[in-house]
Amino acid sequence: MKKNLLLTPGPTQIPPEICDVLGQPIIHHRTPQFQQILKEVTEDLKYVFQTKNDVFILTSSGTGAMEAAVCNLLSANDKVLIIEGGKFGERWTEICKAYGVLPKVIKVEWGKSASLEQIQKILQGEKDIKAVYATLVETSTGVTFDVKAIGEMVKKTNTVLVVDAISGLGATDLPTDAWGVDVVVSGSQKGLMLPPGLAFISLSVKAYNLMAKAKLPRYYFDLQMAKKAFEKTDTPFTPAIGIIIALSESLKIIKTQTLQKLFTHFAKLAKATQAAAKALGLELYAHPSCASNVVTAIKVPVHIDGEKLVKTMRDTYGIAIAGGQGEELKGKIIRIAHMGCINENDTLTGISFLEKVLEEMGYKFKLGTGVAAAEKVLNS
Amino acid sequence: MKKNLLLTPGPTQIPPEICDVLGQPIIHHRTPQFQQILKEVTEDLKYVFQTKNDVFILTSSGTGAMEAAVCNLLSANDKVLIIEGGKFGERWTEICKAYGVLPKVIKVEWGKSASLEQIQKILQGEKDIKAVYATLVETSTGVTFDVKAIGEMVKKTNTVLVVDAISGLGATDLPTDAWGVDVVVSGSQKGLMLPPGLAFISLSVKAYNLMAKAKLPRYYFDLQMAKKAFEKTDTPFTPAIGIIIALSESLKIIKTQTLQKLFTHFAKLAKATQAAAKALGLELYAHPSCASNVVTAIKVPVHIDGEKLVKTMRDTYGIAIAGGQGEELKGKIIRIAHMGCINENDTLTGISFLEKVLEEMGYKFKLGTGVAAAEKVLNS
Repeated sequence: MKKNLLLTPGPTQIPPEICDVLGQPIIHHRTPQFQQILKEVTEDLKYVFQTKNDVFILTSSGTGAMEAAVCNLLSANDKVLIIEGGKFGERWTEICKAYGVLPKVIKVEWGKSASLEQIQKILQGEKDIKAVYATLVETSTGVTFDVKAIGEMVKKTNTVLVVDAISGLGATDLPTDAWGVDVVVSGSQKGLMLPPGLAFISLSVKAYNLMAKAKLPRYYFDLQMAKKAFEKTDTPFTPAIGIIIALSESLKIIKTQTLQKLFTHFAKLAKATQAAAKALGLELYAHPSCASNVVTAIKVPVHIDGEKLVKTMRDTYGIAIAGGQGEELKGKIIRIAHMGCINENDTLTGISFLEKVLEEMGYKFKLGTGVAAAEKVLNS
Repeated sequence: MKKNLLLTPGPTQIPPEICDVLGQPIIHHRTPQFQQILKEVTEDLKYVFQTKNDVFILTSSGTGAMEAAVCNLLSANDKVLIIEGGKFGERWTEICKAYGVLPKVIKVEWGKSASLEQIQKILQGEKDIKAVYATLVETSTGVTFDVKAIGEMVKKTNTVLVVDAISGLGATDLPTDAWGVDVVVSGSQKGLMLPPGLAFISLSVKAYNLMAKAKLPRYYFDLQMAKKAFEKTDTPFTPAIGIIIALSESLKIIKTQTLQKLFTHFAKLAKATQAAAKALGLELYAHPSCASNVVTAIKVPVHIDGEKLVKTMRDTYGIAIAGGQGEELKGKIIRIAHMGCINENDTLTGISFLEKVLEEMGYKFKLGTGVAAAEKVLNS
């Protein structure tokens, strides 16, 4: 009997109690019953976002909230700074270009973090930059960016800091208010352990002030409409009711566990996975100084076909991990997630089957060393 | 024991077998398993859309697909014609205005259908109209527009016809290709019996030709990106995986029932509801010539508080129907749906509890006459 195990960095596993809620009959959204849920989740999201700012729920993929963070804040020909260190950093640039915004792009070497000096220099030299777009966890490379340091720099300027925390929210620390992050966007299918279909966005007063001058066209993602609706405990359009009800379940789990304990837990899983990789003689893709606690990217040995590795783990053994994205990384890396409801068993199982398939594919190593190294970290 | 019954025009009831699918563990979207489902549903949607055109799935409310039908087809200052006969017709105008498109609006009296002569005259006189935006079923008033006649007129011009079939698709006839409808948009939570969270859009060759010249900014709803992705059985962004898998179940049910049988079934439920209303001395809101088979709007008697009526039916007896939308109709009408998996029992139950609450609220009529009139239609 094959048991399927999802270790991909989005979607992540959905806990059984949330699956139960997703399978319930639907209720109408313009009812006191749903409004009560909407009110609660909107409040509880602030705990996960670590903010007192407004947080709005959008019915879309995370990318929808990214687009909202562009078209609601800017006008055509506005200048922005984008810190681009992977596929999702590139998405900020693509969205800005699609809207006729002028992006100044810091191209960070994939797998590395951004140079703070370079960001500082640009912010000091170019006062007309309206917003900085960054990524908390670059899912494509397994890097966590130093948002705290970026926040400290941007805070002192008139520029608004926007952070894509689609991967990372609820899984690695992001104290929105304390770090001075004006806009945080996220999605449902990662740390929140839900199906994809919801996106979230938080907005500071500084962001609202920029929004007041923004002229880019918008309707479905219009955050002024969202604000008006949420003030009446409503949504501007029929929301993904089922996933919002499931979100209330997810937020209860997170609040019970506490963010701090979850962050420590995922960090341990990441360390265990890193240790396993090293023990197996595999190189980590992300530089150790910025390797994420949310997803670990591991280089595939030169003579091993990375795509086949992922495919065999998934199709033969039911263990879903992710491969590399984009031409540069396709077949070159594998990515193993540590967020949502992933626990120690899942991590050890993933490593064990990674060993199994590597052995089948002719990679030379001592069977069991990966799992042993991971156990050592987990039991410490 | 209170049993809840959803008779609202979106969301509609979800059949138990679809609920079961929604409660299953999630799978990753970039797998052969999901690709197989995506391929099947994309094909099967063409059956429901009655088209050979491309149909794309978007992760959003139906309004997202409406926005896609504006920002992908037009450039700023393009002229369009909007047939506006209710709250959802107004939405086309709002979206167009948000994007700097110039809408010429035919204001149709609510509850009535559009004047075909007026449309004809405008189309003949103003050759620079790029697109006509219409509504199949105006959910806010219970009117079905004569899309066939509009299609015949628009077909002869260079103008593209866009129809909002969010309410109506799979519930009332819309032969997209035969009627010459270039773009059809819809959503998941109506005739398709799914939770809200997915939107759909079909595009004719004529629409693609207009799209090639369209300059409005777009990213998340970019249909060229969607086309590229769907050609590789993929989606441009992480889709609402769970609802897409449930969609495959919904399409199986619809194909087994056949569209034609479903249309006849819903038409019968609508006739039964109309007969019941008349028997109870209640007036229908939509003119008989254009009253929809998808949702019936009934005027609330003058001395009865329509909002309280809806609230009592729902909160005391578990029967959810809809009230009137917007300042004009709030408290003035009730709306009862006949789409999705609603059957004769549901319809009779709805009418019976409408009688119960009307009696409680002091409305004078002979108890049972509504149900009797409905039964007469249903058993004929």
